Amino acid sequence: ICDPAPDIETKVRDVFATAGSALAALGFETAGMTDQLRFKKDIAEAVASADIVQECGPERPAFKQGLWKTIEGAAPADALLLSSSSSIPASIQASDMAEPGRIIIGHPFNPPHLMPLVEVVPNPKTDPALTVRVMEFYTGLGKVAVEIRKEIAGFVANRLQSAIFQECVYLVANGIVTLVELDQVVTQSLGIRWATNGPFLSFHLGGGPAGLPHFIEHLGVGMEQLWKVLGKASFDEPTKKLLIDQFSASYGAQSYEDLAEARDAGEIAIINGLARANVTVG
Amino acid sequence: ICDPAPDIETKVRDVFATAGSALAALGFETAGMTDQLRFKKDIAEAVASADIVQECGPERPAFKQGLWKTIEGAAPADALLLSSSSSIPASIQASDMAEPGRIIIGHPFNPPHLMPLVEVVPNPKTDPALTVRVMEFYTGLGKVAVEIRKEIAGFVANRLQSAIFQECVYLVANGIVTLVELDQVVTQSLGIRWATNGPFLSFHLGGGPAGLPHFIEHLGVGMEQLWKVLGKASFDEPTKKLLIDQFSASYGAQSYEDLAEARDAGEIAIINGLARANVTVG
Repeated sequence: ICDPAPDIETKVRDVFATAGSALAALGFETAGMTDQLRFKKDIAEAVASADIVQECGPERPAFKQGLWKTIEGAAPADALLLSSSSSIPASIQASDMAEPGRIIIGHPFNPPHLMPLVEVVPNPKTDPALTVRVMEFYTGLGKVAVEIRKEIAGFVANRLQSAIFQECVYLVANGIVTLVELDQVVTQSLGIRWATNGPFLSFHLGGGPAGLPHFIEHLGVGMEQLWKVLGKASFDEPTKKLLIDQFSASYGAQSYEDLAEARDAGEIAIINGLARANVTVG
Repeated sequence: ICDPAPDIETKVRDVFATAGSALAALGFETAGMTDQLRFKKDIAEAVASADIVQECGPERPAFKQGLWKTIEGAAPADALLLSSSSSIPASIQASDMAEPGRIIIGHPFNPPHLMPLVEVVPNPKTDPALTVRVMEFYTGLGKVAVEIRKEIAGFVANRLQSAIFQECVYLVANGIVTLVELDQVVTQSLGIRWATNGPFLSFHLGGGPAGLPHFIEHLGVGMEQLWKVLGKASFDEPTKKLLIDQFSASYGAQSYEDLAEARDAGEIAIINGLARANVTVG
């Protein structure tokens, strides 16, 4: 671990304590999990004998470009150089490197100790064999690694999330439902659906026994009509105020820690529930 | 049950057999569940002593308008008149009625025997006391009823679903990921998240300890940028062919029945897993 914060060791050990309980609940072996943690102040020293570097720095291109140049000069030539960035493509991060193809995005979905997904996004200069090594690394940790085949703003999960969120803000801003009702609609329908089957498989099963072809042919027209009337939203001052007021009125009495604990417990219950039922999600 | 199909009784009893197993797995009492089923050919006779009429006819306005006129003339004056429609607002369905305010949408999310959500959408002429009765009816069945406060095309869940689906089709059509990879991204991240916490609560917890206000203030700008670059999609011929080819290549070897059974088992595992863990989703 290399981080300029003076209390980084305490912070990291606190996170590992919480994450350790969650990982144990998911059935991972956690004994001795932190035994090999080492804390270094100097980045070159920290990466000197690293097999894998997972960069989690601030989301500023210039910062990451300088950091990677230093790391490239100090880490072993075959070390995997991975960035947790959710927004800065590898090709931009690698602009000052001798071998820019080495940087690959390995974006874990939040909370990273619970969520299976890691989006793996190589850059146009990446050797495909290197991407294979990265996919195997995350898969070996028990993650579900999905390769994003072209660099694109927001990658995949955050683009999908932002698409739905624009409509969420629009519906609440226009008084169709309140913020807490919107959340309830999602948890009691789409969330359960999408934790089991993705959007395409869901529509295959929603189209009747003739499946996705029937769905596209007969219900696709209705969906295209709906695409035309979807809302636009912006975080202007009245919208911000409305959202924050409604949030306070509904969830405001519960502490951040209690809500986060309930979220973790819920996510663990879902992951374990699906595993116990031996269900292959699609 | 009133339906013109000659084999309606067989069909309905088959559905109840499958749904009964699912309901039993969710902990509902199912003994004698179908004992009071009656099948009538004539709609006026079918509704003559009904407390509740749940209309599930074809999604054609003229058909529903005629049907409701007949039902209004034949059903008890205090019967609840509910429509399962996912697309035709109550005010349009009620155009030929003496008391148009009586029609209320009660749209159950598919598959209706498993999904908790029912969207309750009154029309502008509905007496609020009637909406309360309808909400209590669905809640009494163990459903989560959410009142949609204004009529709007697609109501809430299907608008949200269509917003995300446009981006899904865009990403697959542009080769960012394949159809099955897109589904995998969703099931391994957003689905688990949204089965536990809705989009607003998720961003509250994703914004760090300062919560939703911090998220909107500091990360909202990045999200607004992403809204500007979200994709447009259409079901043109090349896109249809691509989707159907990729679907066949990935899920094609599995029967509709096996996939539907896996979906039901997954949804039951999630609902039961959350209940067992005593997690309040938000």
